[in-house]
Amino acid sequence: MDGTEFDLIKSYFAPLTQNYPEAYNLENDAALINEDADRSTVVTMDTLVEGVHFFSTDPADDIARKVLRVNLSDLAAMGARPKGYTLSISYNASISNDWVKLFTQGLAEDQKKFQCNLMGGDTVFSVGPLTLSLTCFGSVPRGKCLYRTTGEEGDDIWVSGTIGDSAVGLKLLKEEINSNYPAATSFLIDRYRVPQPKTELGIALLEQGISKTALDISDGLLADVNHIAKGSNLQARITSSRIPLSKAFKDVFETALGPDICLAATGGDDYELLFTSHRKNRQELIEISDKLNTPITRIGVLAKGTGVLLLDEENREIPVDQYGWEHF
Amino acid sequence: MDGTEFDLIKSYFAPLTQNYPEAYNLENDAALINEDADRSTVVTMDTLVEGVHFFSTDPADDIARKVLRVNLSDLAAMGARPKGYTLSISYNASISNDWVKLFTQGLAEDQKKFQCNLMGGDTVFSVGPLTLSLTCFGSVPRGKCLYRTTGEEGDDIWVSGTIGDSAVGLKLLKEEINSNYPAATSFLIDRYRVPQPKTELGIALLEQGISKTALDISDGLLADVNHIAKGSNLQARITSSRIPLSKAFKDVFETALGPDICLAATGGDDYELLFTSHRKNRQELIEISDKLNTPITRIGVLAKGTGVLLLDEENREIPVDQYGWEHF
Repeated sequence: MDGTEFDLIKSYFAPLTQNYPEAYNLENDAALINEDADRSTVVTMDTLVEGVHFFSTDPADDIARKVLRVNLSDLAAMGARPKGYTLSISYNASISNDWVKLFTQGLAEDQKKFQCNLMGGDTVFSVGPLTLSLTCFGSVPRGKCLYRTTGEEGDDIWVSGTIGDSAVGLKLLKEEINSNYPAATSFLIDRYRVPQPKTELGIALLEQGISKTALDISDGLLADVNHIAKGSNLQARITSSRIPLSKAFKDVFETALGPDICLAATGGDDYELLFTSHRKNRQELIEISDKLNTPITRIGVLAKGTGVLLLDEENREIPVDQYGWEHF
Repeated sequence: MDGTEFDLIKSYFAPLTQNYPEAYNLENDAALINEDADRSTVVTMDTLVEGVHFFSTDPADDIARKVLRVNLSDLAAMGARPKGYTLSISYNASISNDWVKLFTQGLAEDQKKFQCNLMGGDTVFSVGPLTLSLTCFGSVPRGKCLYRTTGEEGDDIWVSGTIGDSAVGLKLLKEEINSNYPAATSFLIDRYRVPQPKTELGIALLEQGISKTALDISDGLLADVNHIAKGSNLQARITSSRIPLSKAFKDVFETALGPDICLAATGGDDYELLFTSHRKNRQELIEISDKLNTPITRIGVLAKGTGVLLLDEENREIPVDQYGWEHF
């Protein structure tokens, strides 16, 4: 990278704070957050490492979107309105000015889309892989948020969007499977590279009091269902055939590997919202879904018991080796 | 490291949130910050990389203190009261459970000392060097903080503590110089490894209205003086003989390299506060210094002009090759 760190910050990062005066153009030691008296600030932090969470060949603007959006997805799971973020970049000799330019373009576009601003951060040189840490800030009604532990017996279990696309996208990128469907392939890879956080849905769930319990699916559907089941001291019963799959997923995956639901159910990196709600809210949820143009599907129910059951059409249990991604 | 990431978080990191219920025992997607209506939240983020900002042989508890304290030092430079932090750890195969245990012990001790709590974070595996990103939160009277750009003509320039210790400590660690003073050597290396953020002094400067202008010295005294001079459109005149040096610095450094002030003036990593104040506040500042048991020294003045002059006793300019550390 040419120029000093100061030049880099001034040219590429300071402009990202232009709508956030309390970032002081990145020229002070820190930024201020002035929260309204009736609101709380939500804070979350996620790190992406080259070779682990993205590929060095991924476009720089997609990497930017991914690191911002995995955090925005956590905010959505809290029901929070995005506000801003701080970003730390540990870069190495392979990072060029052009890369930084494209990376910050990706951030600029997403800042508009999600109404959030750069507030501060750090850039450091490292001999290791490109490592991006982002701390993201949102806002909720004071003291209120969605939890993972507040599901109630009889609650419906819902999920947004489609499940498993990202897991297949990753398999395609790693060339573990082949596809004869170029458009589907592109769609699935894009689903892996660029999460679509369900920001407006999360806000509606919290602020309209439709749900108390949500998380965003990153570990895999069943692993994340298990977080809610365990936290709520209940059993989650998921009807396999209800898990929403995209046409691209079906075309590519079933052609390559046969009709096995387990990849979708355990794949991870979906960044869809998983939430529970009393059955009386079904109609209201469908109206919210229509209004936000965000598909949601009822996939199961919370019941007495423990763990997660994946059931077929006749409520027979489908064996699953493991729920999904175990952090290591 | 043995066990899953979940085990690690539960055993070592969740206990660090015990005094911060809004961290939800690290079991939710994010944490809440409930700021008082008459306060603002201050946010800063710094990253340390193994081999760049610390050595792999440094004790794990010292590394923990360093990553927390470089951020607390930024809060001090804003005049903020520490509140909490989120931490992201990109670790590699060399990190053992014992290392994590000692690391979190270091954090626990500093949490008590500085009254701040873990609020959240992330742990990810990396093939690269250990990389620690910490986002730190403080609190200031609503909308108020110390700036780098608000120095006024005639303001005294002050600095806390002693300058240059850390730069000599680093030279000793890297065996670029030798020392015949074991106690001084240990003191200087400790100054490099474990910053001493001037939290109470920063709070007093802001909340008692003694200063509007401060930063913490990380790039090197002259480089940081230049930030204030440039930001305030003034010239900073520093009297070389007034720069406060520790006995250890004098013993080790002057013995090894002769009486050259430049290492102190340009060395960096001091994490002392540099601030300006109207001359009418001199007596009050000395009283604050006494009360907090935090030595401060008046080292120069802001005047019409640009840049930084380093002056000898007869106000002759001492040539300095460069102000200090340039970020790259």
